[in-house]
Amino acid sequence: SIYLSIYLSIYLSICLSVCLSVCLYKHEFRGGVRGYEEDELVYEPSKYGSLWPLPQKVRVSEVSFKLPSASFKIVDAKESSAGPSCSLLQNAYRRYYEYMFGSVRKPGYVKSRAAGPSEISELQVWITSADSECDSYPSLTSDESCEFALPHCLETFSQLVYEDAYGAKNINSTTISDFPRFAHRGILLDTSRHFLPIKVILANLEAMAMNKFNVFHWHIVDDPSFPYLSRTFPQLSQQGAYHPYTHVYTPADVKMIIEFARLRGIRVIPEFDTPGHTQSWGKGQKDLLTPCYSGTTPSGTFGPVNPILNTTYSFMRQLFSEISSVFPDAYVHLGGDEVDFSCWRSNPDIQNFMEQQGFGQDYSKLESFYIQKLLDIVTTTQKGYMIWQEVFDNGVKLKPDTLIHVWKGNQQQYKDEMANITSAGYHTLLSTPWYLNRISYGQDWQGVYRADPQDFKGTEAQKKLVIGGEACLWGEYVDATNLTPRLWPRASAVAERLWSAKEVTDISDAYSRLSMHRCRLVERGIPAEPLFTSFCPHEYKGV
Amino acid sequence: SIYLSIYLSIYLSICLSVCLSVCLYKHEFRGGVRGYEEDELVYEPSKYGSLWPLPQKVRVSEVSFKLPSASFKIVDAKESSAGPSCSLLQNAYRRYYEYMFGSVRKPGYVKSRAAGPSEISELQVWITSADSECDSYPSLTSDESCEFALPHCLETFSQLVYEDAYGAKNINSTTISDFPRFAHRGILLDTSRHFLPIKVILANLEAMAMNKFNVFHWHIVDDPSFPYLSRTFPQLSQQGAYHPYTHVYTPADVKMIIEFARLRGIRVIPEFDTPGHTQSWGKGQKDLLTPCYSGTTPSGTFGPVNPILNTTYSFMRQLFSEISSVFPDAYVHLGGDEVDFSCWRSNPDIQNFMEQQGFGQDYSKLESFYIQKLLDIVTTTQKGYMIWQEVFDNGVKLKPDTLIHVWKGNQQQYKDEMANITSAGYHTLLSTPWYLNRISYGQDWQGVYRADPQDFKGTEAQKKLVIGGEACLWGEYVDATNLTPRLWPRASAVAERLWSAKEVTDISDAYSRLSMHRCRLVERGIPAEPLFTSFCPHEYKGV
Repeated sequence: SIYLSIYLSIYLSICLSVCLSVCLYKHEFRGGVRGYEEDELVYEPSKYGSLWPLPQKVRVSEVSFKLPSASFKIVDAKESSAGPSCSLLQNAYRRYYEYMFGSVRKPGYVKSRAAGPSEISELQVWITSADSECDSYPSLTSDESCEFALPHCLETFSQLVYEDAYGAKNINSTTISDFPRFAHRGILLDTSRHFLPIKVILANLEAMAMNKFNVFHWHIVDDPSFPYLSRTFPQLSQQGAYHPYTHVYTPADVKMIIEFARLRGIRVIPEFDTPGHTQSWGKGQKDLLTPCYSGTTPSGTFGPVNPILNTTYSFMRQLFSEISSVFPDAYVHLGGDEVDFSCWRSNPDIQNFMEQQGFGQDYSKLESFYIQKLLDIVTTTQKGYMIWQEVFDNGVKLKPDTLIHVWKGNQQQYKDEMANITSAGYHTLLSTPWYLNRISYGQDWQGVYRADPQDFKGTEAQKKLVIGGEACLWGEYVDATNLTPRLWPRASAVAERLWSAKEVTDISDAYSRLSMHRCRLVERGIPAEPLFTSFCPHEYKGV
Repeated sequence: SIYLSIYLSIYLSICLSVCLSVCLYKHEFRGGVRGYEEDELVYEPSKYGSLWPLPQKVRVSEVSFKLPSASFKIVDAKESSAGPSCSLLQNAYRRYYEYMFGSVRKPGYVKSRAAGPSEISELQVWITSADSECDSYPSLTSDESCEFALPHCLETFSQLVYEDAYGAKNINSTTISDFPRFAHRGILLDTSRHFLPIKVILANLEAMAMNKFNVFHWHIVDDPSFPYLSRTFPQLSQQGAYHPYTHVYTPADVKMIIEFARLRGIRVIPEFDTPGHTQSWGKGQKDLLTPCYSGTTPSGTFGPVNPILNTTYSFMRQLFSEISSVFPDAYVHLGGDEVDFSCWRSNPDIQNFMEQQGFGQDYSKLESFYIQKLLDIVTTTQKGYMIWQEVFDNGVKLKPDTLIHVWKGNQQQYKDEMANITSAGYHTLLSTPWYLNRISYGQDWQGVYRADPQDFKGTEAQKKLVIGGEACLWGEYVDATNLTPRLWPRASAVAERLWSAKEVTDISDAYSRLSMHRCRLVERGIPAEPLFTSFCPHEYKGV
């Protein structure tokens, strides 16, 4: 197991424990409401300042230190195992230097000088990892180690820095011991219903890192369009994308997104959802979809993937072989939700096959037949898989390490589902209460914040099978114009639920910290929308 | 009365009637859904292409003409009364040239040449107005004349231009006769609950012009903050703004916004809402607000404007004298909504005054007393006034040219209110169904589109007293980060309701045109959100 510690030395040489031991936070600016009229929550500054998500343990002191912007250094500690070409660290240093000090540059006339007694002039970063070049990818089983936790720790450090009345940067002495409650903390973006330009995806990966999310669930293709440019089957996007050049993700784009995510401790899990949700696949791949019949003749429309042809499975074998090499993560999401049986029912060849197999009129058996063969194919690519809950509900045989993704039902129903899945011994993650595409008037982040993925009837062993959750932003009503402010800071509420201790549920304290956190996002260039009547010291300057 | 006509001459010399006689539209791109799955509306191209709002009369021909981007000219017609320094025209020419031809510049190697037979090389703009320098402001009683209608006509012309398969610009021969159904077509923005940077306001004025809105109702101050920098009472914003330098509108800012609006045919009507909604006023103006009492002692909090002090009225006299000179429009909005009586009730001085005046316990009489005096003050500044419906409901004596703004109640209630107001002989405008700050999941533009301000029980004479309506975007949950995509294209639905003929109510035709219109807004740099699953040829490239 690898171990991370960042410590501040020179004039403050406290060695740090689990993750980071720094400095308390004392903030001048107030980002909340002004304490009158339509307040739904009274704004009271939190004793934890703007920390978000709240670390597991924070101890705060009144002692403050100045950070000299012009000469401040972030360096590898002597003891660190990081090599000089660890790009992950170098990139994180640059990013967080800019977050903390903005565009401050060392002016020519500032001579280097000895640091004063109440000054921190250097942040030493100490990682202990076998991988000195930091080339590996984050994974589900990383115990929040080097590559993985580092961006999170620097994020926490940067959240502790504040400006005093003269604009000088300060940090208060603080002891923090931190780790996430859940290992899987994801955001689903849907690039099929609307194409999302790369720039939008990257900006949201940035925002994810600022909220300690660690999984980008890329719902990359679906009925409306197929923007994934496959090397093996280029006709899929040539025919199935909204536009074959301007609305596709090329192999270089995908690679860049994965690397950008990796540098921020974020895994990229692609979803290739079958056998339903595949209308756009059919445009570039003949005979892949089931021809629907109207009476005894084909109607010209198509249904789910055709599960009775050998060509279907040889296509899937080649496609998932490509996917498994393009996406380095150990998991791929295989979908399996919302399969509509009406087209299968209408097709005489499918009817014959059903009879042959002895499935009777139970089309969920046909669905399971298909999924079973697909899972076997994916297993040969050495990948684990995630699937939507229907696959479990239909009784498909699953590998023990399968992750079952809960998205359906009302509160009681999804809790029952979590109980059933975990009582069958499977790992699970929750999205039902976190469909952030659904909007309503007012402070809906509060409902989002209150949901808890372990809040169902079950044993402690069952609860341990919950690996986390994902906020989903389905694409019917969002594209580059409105995605980012619709997602943030509402997704931040999910971030804290999945990172912080179960007991962190004080809505009023959360309101205060989240108001300041959202202003920090705005200041860093993310157009996160306001929680309520208020202002930020630096308003968003875009349109 | 002044009269406007734009006509295309040279090779297409059809003289135009009321407003504009140009060219039909035939469009290659489709911005809607792809005709499968979750369609709520089937996307069928409209025979009116992307025209939005729909002109009153459109006749379309199949004959198309090419527009040579590099040499295309927009010029004053010989007959035009416009002087060479008519900045309104010059600015409109530049703006619409850029909308139509993007960044195309005349390349050096393109020689000027005679236009071919199916080519339009020049758009001649012919205005007939006494004001050759175009310095005047649009007004409620302008009969859609020169300054006023011109931007709208150029907008229509630009909406008719389309690209053929080779990227060449085309326009089809079309006859259009156009005028707005209602004279007052407004958008309310609230700069008190969140401060809106100038850039955001300007961008939304741009978008308003693209939708033929002609009134910017600037709800500039309210309880949370007072960003208007008054020359007479600078302490109002020094104390009452969120920040005295970064969160205020200086006189130069206000002037710039008014001029930017004027160049786009948009009036700016400021709202200084009293006697309620004035918490922020009290910070910089001692004794303006009523001290609330807790038992027999002042509680330290304040209520509405104090209506019993002479100092209140001398303050209002000075303030509105300034306002009347800063804002050139003939109307000012005086608010008058939601006055909470509990503070007045608690105050012993107010109680005595009530007794003196013989108001009994009827505090709406006190409210009327205040409003009456305020209206008299504003009348001396030569301004007309708009007020929210409560002022009418309370029976305050109003000048005959008062505009009564309806915002309350459910559908039946606001219809009754419109009937009552018009039966009393007053002019009115509607906002109730157009509170666009209220959001819900899905295509809520359809409900917005269906509301009609003349749809109440009343005589024809009553219906004629309806001057239009306003879409309101109150500021609790919007600021620079999310305002523009939340407003557009939802406000476009209001735009068509207020401009086009009453009979234009086909939701499916509207869906098709509006989808394309929103892509046009996106292409012109306005991040208007999508209606549903779809794409635009040029997606928004911002974050």
